[in-house]
Order: sequence, then structure tokens, then C-alpha cells
Amino acid sequence: MAGSRNEDEALGEFELIERYFARQSDADGVLIGIGDDAAVIDAEGPVAVAIDTLVAGTHFPADFPASSVGYRVLAVNLSDLAAMGATPRWAMLALTLPDADRAWLEGFSNGLFELANRHDVKLVGGDLTRGPLAATVQIIGTVTPGAVLTRGAGRIGDDVYVTGTLGDATAGLASLRGPRVPDDAVRARLEDRFGRPDVRIAEGLAIATLANAAIDVSDGLIADLGHICVQSACAAVVDVDLIPLSAELRAACTPDLALAHALGGGDDYELCFTASPDRSDAIRSAMMQVGTRVTRIGKLIVGDSVVCRRDGEPFSVPASGYTHF
Amino acid sequence: MAGSRNEDEALGEFELIERYFARQSDADGVLIGIGDDAAVIDAEGPVAVAIDTLVAGTHFPADFPASSVGYRVLAVNLSDLAAMGATPRWAMLALTLPDADRAWLEGFSNGLFELANRHDVKLVGGDLTRGPLAATVQIIGTVTPGAVLTRGAGRIGDDVYVTGTLGDATAGLASLRGPRVPDDAVRARLEDRFGRPDVRIAEGLAIATLANAAIDVSDGLIADLGHICVQSACAAVVDVDLIPLSAELRAACTPDLALAHALGGGDDYELCFTASPDRSDAIRSAMMQVGTRVTRIGKLIVGDSVVCRRDGEPFSVPASGYTHF
Repeated sequence: MAGSRNEDEALGEFELIERYFARQSDADGVLIGIGDDAAVIDAEGPVAVAIDTLVAGTHFPADFPASSVGYRVLAVNLSDLAAMGATPRWAMLALTLPDADRAWLEGFSNGLFELANRHDVKLVGGDLTRGPLAATVQIIGTVTPGAVLTRGAGRIGDDVYVTGTLGDATAGLASLRGPRVPDDAVRARLEDRFGRPDVRIAEGLAIATLANAAIDVSDGLIADLGHICVQSACAAVVDVDLIPLSAELRAACTPDLALAHALGGGDDYELCFTASPDRSDAIRSAMMQVGTRVTRIGKLIVGDSVVCRRDGEPFSVPASGYTHF
Repeated sequence: MAGSRNEDEALGEFELIERYFARQSDADGVLIGIGDDAAVIDAEGPVAVAIDTLVAGTHFPADFPASSVGYRVLAVNLSDLAAMGATPRWAMLALTLPDADRAWLEGFSNGLFELANRHDVKLVGGDLTRGPLAATVQIIGTVTPGAVLTRGAGRIGDDVYVTGTLGDATAGLASLRGPRVPDDAVRARLEDRFGRPDVRIAEGLAIATLANAAIDVSDGLIADLGHICVQSACAAVVDVDLIPLSAELRAACTPDLALAHALGGGDDYELCFTASPDRSDAIRSAMMQVGTRVTRIGKLIVGDSVVCRRDGEPFSVPASGYTHF
């Protein structure tokens, strides 16, 4: 990791990096790891690259558990690669902290490496600076030529699918900010969907040669499916009765609020993708193999926006009444 | 670039990206550029990767010209690759702004692309978020196997070199913070060394097969040469009378202060490198070809620290009396 004079002196940047971030062994493809001006890696083929920042006060409350910040900042990046059908391999971290809070760093790095190790992602470098709390991760993953999923490859007539269930993370965030969901098990499940979202790496790989367009649901289903529509030059119709809702979301929210969270809330990091109807059986079979629920929720049609329907009638998405921080 | 719900609504993230950051044409090796969940690039070989953050109030004053922030955040990353003997190719940007200040974005992106275009570096993606002003760039460059410069490859008996002149950027920063250097030409030159540092890409490539260890001088010569010593398990002796000082630095500062800036001040982004004495002629010839001054300033010796000498006697580095922001 590159040093900066002031942190070296004030925070002991190198000691902090050694203690909290240099905890993985060397890995395939890492020719030079943490500790030089740059890392050197060899992907032996094309790579997908993404970068995302989480800022305290914007993307998480300042008192959010450090481990969840570490977990989430990697998760949002892994999710971007999942939506490309990529295999994440290497990550870089740029962390800005108001001071060298050891307990915070311990929690942050534990959360980061929990998810990194689960997906065999190696931290190869980074930068530690002093300032208002924010974390940026840049991720690099390998892709197979011809099996890369983009937002713009949707075709009119495609079925639209989502993995897992939607809306849980938004309900979890609402609970975290209060009032808390009363039932312990329901609350834990929903809050975990916000704090420790699943990332759909295996699912992205499973559909990489079957699907046309794909995106991860980070901004909300309607917004993200809208990105597919814009880039694929088409519209989408969504049957709201088909939207997959978890038992926990149904238990914690009124039916209208559950649907509002599922359609408008973000942070679930499920995949939304489109595929030709003749791939339907292959997609269900591929998702069964990775053990993940997949639901057909609509179709791509001629037009330029996302339209919701219920019982064949136009349906106005209820306002979630919920804004991010 | 990945979207975030709040910025989409409040700042028009996609419009901002389109207007300020999607201004380069596609390039060799870019299979998918800005606008999807991730970019896809193909280096066709190993790559060097680095990441660096500049935070307002820590690395630059909040009223620093936006163009200089954009220029510098790329420069510090390019400089890391220069020190590896890498060729920078692709960059990603994570920019955090308190609000969508169009004039600031115009200046920032102008500064960034001025340097990016000079070195044929393509911005392939990024993230735009709301929060305290900070910019992170992640850089990816190609390397030639067997021609990668590291901090740990120095050998006892190596000559120690620096490119260009040292101390100018610190004097320029001091002038920017006041009192200003009175002479217009001197002031402009010194302040530019801080605001728009040269990056030594061609120089890093020129010495990649000739030098042993290398680092860029970002934290100050003594500190950075110290990193080479630690990682190469040796000491260094530096003859302070050999340190290259510019005419502008000599004009603006007392001899002691000039030397203090050159030895202790950072931000010059010159290269410091070591090479076997039998490479001396080849190094001078290679640097002459790229038109850059190179100066032998000392040697690597047995031990574990950086020692300065003047006329053969131990020399204590005068305090620069200058701290970063």
C-alpha cells in the first residue's frame, strides 16, 4: 500500500496495514502483493473492473457496526461483478478514517475478510488516509469471452427474472433506524439482508451463457430494470403479483409496504436479468444447481419504460416513504 | 459507472458522468467502458495496480483549484506505476462531492483528462457519491515480465539515483499557503511542481531493465529511500552535496531550507532508484534518451537506515519545519 507522510507519523499507517490488512497468504495470479508502490497481478485473460464508495452519513450511519461497513463495501463491488458474470479475484481498498481507531479497524477488516475469504478474493493493495469516514473498494475479476452479461443485451420478448427475494434489505434498514421489528428472528434476518447482503457470484456465473441482459438490484428493482430498458432500447412489463417476497418481509410489513420495498427499495443485491423464453428450462435448472430461487416476473416489450401490472391492469407503485440516509 | 439511488435523484449522477467523465473514445483493450455494472478490459499480460485517495483538508486545501485536484489524484497513481516500470493504461475514479458543483466538476475533469490524455490513459469507470470532498483513483498498467521494479530488489553496493530535482513541490506548497514567493516565474514553477507534478512514466520504463530497486518520491527522499532500505534489508548513505536542487528552489529558499525541502519534503514524484555501478553508463544513456536529468546521490551499504553525509562527515537533516495540511 502506498504511504502518505502524515498518516505514517500520526497513525502508523504501515503498522496498521500489517496488522489489519496483510492477513491473507499469497494467491494464484498475485505476482507482487501488498507493500510496494503497486501490486502486480496476472489474470491471463480479460477482466471486469468496478469501484464503489461507501460514505458515512450517506450510505451508512456513522455508528453502523464497523464489520458491516467492511462487509458491505466489498459486497457492493462483488455484486457488480456478479451482474457481469465475472469471477472476483483481487480487491484494492482506499480507506479514509478520522483517526486510527483500533477497535473500528478490527471490526472493519473482520467484515471485509469474512466476505473476501468466502469468495476467495485477495486484497492486493490500498491506501489509508485521514479524513471523514469513507471506504472505497476496487474489484478485479476474470471473465470468459463470450460469457459477459451487460445491461444493453436485452431483447424484446425476453423474460425478466430476479434471484432470491426483494425488499428485505430496505425493511432491515428501516428496522435498524427504528422502530425495530419486534420478532427477533424476523428482525435478525431482515437487518442481516441490509448489513450482510448475499452476493450472487455463483448465480451470475450460472446464467452467464444463458441470459441476455443483467444488473444487480442495488438502487431498487424498478430503477435497475429501467437501466436495462434504457441500454437495451426497450420497455419492461412487471407483474407485481409475481415479485418474490420473503416470509420475513411479509411478517414485518403490510402488503403494500412490502411491495413498495420490493419494487423501490435497493440494497438487496439480487440479480435481475433477461433471457429468451426458450432458455427458461435451462435457467431454472442452472439456478437449482446453485440452490437459489429464481422467479420470472415479467417481459421485455416495445417501449421505453418499466410498467407494473396487477391482474392485467396498470399498477402504480406505492411510495416506499423511505429515503436512504 | 455504478449508480447510487440518492445521487441519481439529487445530483443527476448519470448526466454528470455523461457530461464530465465520458469524454474519451474507446481504446485498445477496453471491451466494455463506462456505463455498465463493471468495465471489461484486456491487458493481454500481467498488470500493475495501485489506488490512492486525496482528501480535502488532508491532502489539499478545500479551496485548492479543482483542476489541480483532478490532475494530482491521477498523478499520484501514475507515479506509483512509474516506480514499477509499468505503462499506465486504464483508470477508475471514485469521487465524493458535497454537492454537484458544475464549475468544480468542469475544472476537476479538465485537470484529470489533461494528464490522462497526455499519457494515453482511459477512464473506464467509477462511482460518484455525495459526502465530504475526496477523490480516489485506481490505476491499471501493463508490465513486462522480468522488467518490474520493486522496493525490495536493492543490493548492497548499488548506486542510488534520483531523477530531476527535489524539494520544489514543498517550496511550491509553502508558497501557496503563503507567504507567496515574490518572483513570478520562480513562484509559478514551484507552485506548478506541487499542483501539476511531472510523472516519470518514460523514466521508469527506461530504467526497468537496468535498475534494481525503485520508488517514487512522494513522502520525501529520506522516508522513501528508507522504504527501499527496509525492503532490501540494507542501509543507504546519501551525499547531501549531490542532491539535485533547481535554480528556482535555490532562488526561493535559504540553502538550509532548500536542502530540508529536498530531503524531507514530499510530493515531487521524482523516481529514486538503485542500480549496480556497472550499469552507470547505460542509465545515463537511457535517461539522456528520454531527456531527463539523473543524479547519483549515494550508495546502498550494509546496515538498516538512511545516513546523510557532507564532505564525508555525518550530516543531520535540518527540519523542514513544514507539515502537510
